[in-house]
Amino acid sequence: MAVKVGNQTWQLMRAPVVIETATVAGPLEGEGPLFADYDGVYAEPVAGERSFEAAEKEMMLNACFTALQKAGKTPSDVDIFLAGDLLNQTITSGFSALELKIPYLGLYGACSSSAESLIVASALVEAGFAQVVLAAVSSHNSASERQYRYPTEYGVHRKPTAQWTVTGAGAALVAAPDGPAARKASEQAARKTSEQTTAPKDGALPHITYVTIGKVNDLGIKDPLNMGAAMAPGAVDTLTSHFADTGRGPEFYDLIVTGDLGRFGHQLAVRLAAERGGFTLSDNYQDCGVMIYDFDKQDVHSGGSGCACSALVTYGHLYHRMLRGDLKRLLLCATGSLHSPTSVQQGNNIPVIAHAVSFEMTP
Amino acid sequence: MAVKVGNQTWQLMRAPVVIETATVAGPLEGEGPLFADYDGVYAEPVAGERSFEAAEKEMMLNACFTALQKAGKTPSDVDIFLAGDLLNQTITSGFSALELKIPYLGLYGACSSSAESLIVASALVEAGFAQVVLAAVSSHNSASERQYRYPTEYGVHRKPTAQWTVTGAGAALVAAPDGPAARKASEQAARKTSEQTTAPKDGALPHITYVTIGKVNDLGIKDPLNMGAAMAPGAVDTLTSHFADTGRGPEFYDLIVTGDLGRFGHQLAVRLAAERGGFTLSDNYQDCGVMIYDFDKQDVHSGGSGCACSALVTYGHLYHRMLRGDLKRLLLCATGSLHSPTSVQQGNNIPVIAHAVSFEMTP
Repeated sequence: MAVKVGNQTWQLMRAPVVIETATVAGPLEGEGPLFADYDGVYAEPVAGERSFEAAEKEMMLNACFTALQKAGKTPSDVDIFLAGDLLNQTITSGFSALELKIPYLGLYGACSSSAESLIVASALVEAGFAQVVLAAVSSHNSASERQYRYPTEYGVHRKPTAQWTVTGAGAALVAAPDGPAARKASEQAARKTSEQTTAPKDGALPHITYVTIGKVNDLGIKDPLNMGAAMAPGAVDTLTSHFADTGRGPEFYDLIVTGDLGRFGHQLAVRLAAERGGFTLSDNYQDCGVMIYDFDKQDVHSGGSGCACSALVTYGHLYHRMLRGDLKRLLLCATGSLHSPTSVQQGNNIPVIAHAVSFEMTP
Repeated sequence: MAVKVGNQTWQLMRAPVVIETATVAGPLEGEGPLFADYDGVYAEPVAGERSFEAAEKEMMLNACFTALQKAGKTPSDVDIFLAGDLLNQTITSGFSALELKIPYLGLYGACSSSAESLIVASALVEAGFAQVVLAAVSSHNSASERQYRYPTEYGVHRKPTAQWTVTGAGAALVAAPDGPAARKASEQAARKTSEQTTAPKDGALPHITYVTIGKVNDLGIKDPLNMGAAMAPGAVDTLTSHFADTGRGPEFYDLIVTGDLGRFGHQLAVRLAAERGGFTLSDNYQDCGVMIYDFDKQDVHSGGSGCACSALVTYGHLYHRMLRGDLKRLLLCATGSLHSPTSVQQGNNIPVIAHAVSFEMTP
């Protein structure tokens, strides 16, 4: 049974388990510092398809089938497929659902879709509604650029605050902790980690213990080339609620990551946490949009963004660190901007949302 | 506890209650046969706003605040806000969430978003995740036309199979059956219906007893001006699963409604049910897209479509008929087409989904 604590946070008493994940990345991401954690890296952004949109679908399906295969499962073992992406009418998700043939619920939380899908997945598992849920997100730089801004062929100059939409997809399998899927995954994990010195020997897997559902905020930002500034206050708002609701402080977590604030947004979040939230974000706070690229070698301005940004870092690198016993308590706060080109052109501010998911190795 | 029955259907043992609904309609819908069931009708499509997009947001917020007000509630009484619409990046929902200040999860199921939001709402209530969930959807003819097809000012000729995107919004409050919100709503209903001869005197309200989550299908249709043909097989697929999973037949329900197939799609659904589904859709089967307009007086070609189509008919007219005791068992099968203009231009077929929700007065 889930128990609501405070205004926006739920404690998941059964603590659903993330039994498996998979990530596939575009070429630029594959040259980044986290390359070894991806299950696959594409040599070309178009991924052998006829369009960038078709490439994004290929990536989401690849992430989904890889996660299933690693878990020894087929689509028919999954009760519900949850997915979200940035393309209009979330076509990546819908067309992927067509091929997966799993009962499908489409989500839209912009770049916060990773955390949103984990929240809905864990709620459905907690409810006994599902034994196994597949949650997937994707984004594609070239497909996003031409939809939100300009086709990349235009060679438009970018501001230093601009972020780079990550190309790739991530998928996570969330399962009931007492079900056969979780037991099998735990046995697998125990076998895999038996030779690693740091890994837990009991086949422990990350549990989702608390989720904080964000409210939409509007901080007066109108510039879609400065998303970090728009989204940082949203992240701080949700983190403030999470800490107030749970009674935990930032020091409870080995690591807190925001989804895709980039370098400017990361700095702003640290400042706003102190000024507005009354808490300190220090060395255990990082941003997926900063972690995913090497700023010395890669020209990505303020850093990564897009649904795949938080998914690649969390479902790849951080999931593996949790399995190795290197991280025991992780808080993902995925941020999303809910504007559209039309809403910006009509003079509206950029509304933002952030959802937080707490992963713990010992629930 | 929800119990999965068959492959795609869940029985909600606690049977969450739809404690209140509200609908607001555009001018054309207000001239239709169901006008008396709307809580409000706008005199102009632009609803006093600066754009059709802003008008759609005004409508969604109006529906939400009206539902809350009728139930004697404020946004702070609601645990989670679920919403979906047709505009790119579902801006109607996101900007509405900004004003409601309720923890928000965005959904995208195209025109099936009404049923999708009820399914997620009832799952969250069933899980004890939420006591009260507000689920809203909207669509706007002029905002949709210029996004999906052509600005209405072009005066483009329309095919007979084309449908008319409904302008309006609907909101439903879904609550735990044993909670204070449901008790209060039941007392209200008992008072309101005490003078009606047909109404149940015990303050009975519609319960959500079964939900069937759709799979995405692609029936080879490429013409976005013949959505009925694209969506009818999707509806029949989900109905077939619903009947197989529950052991119920079409005769179990006083009324089965599809969301927005229109006249051509309605006929096709009847034929496909017999040919592929092996069941008969007869007089107790109607389509919201047919019910919402008067075809003798209104030039709407094949009929209504859009997220608001099924919401206006179900949350308005049919909800009232359930409260009056006129309908005891209702099955809503809301249909959605998951294409985008880009996916059509790139030569893809139109993928479709349909979700079914069973409402019963005596769970």
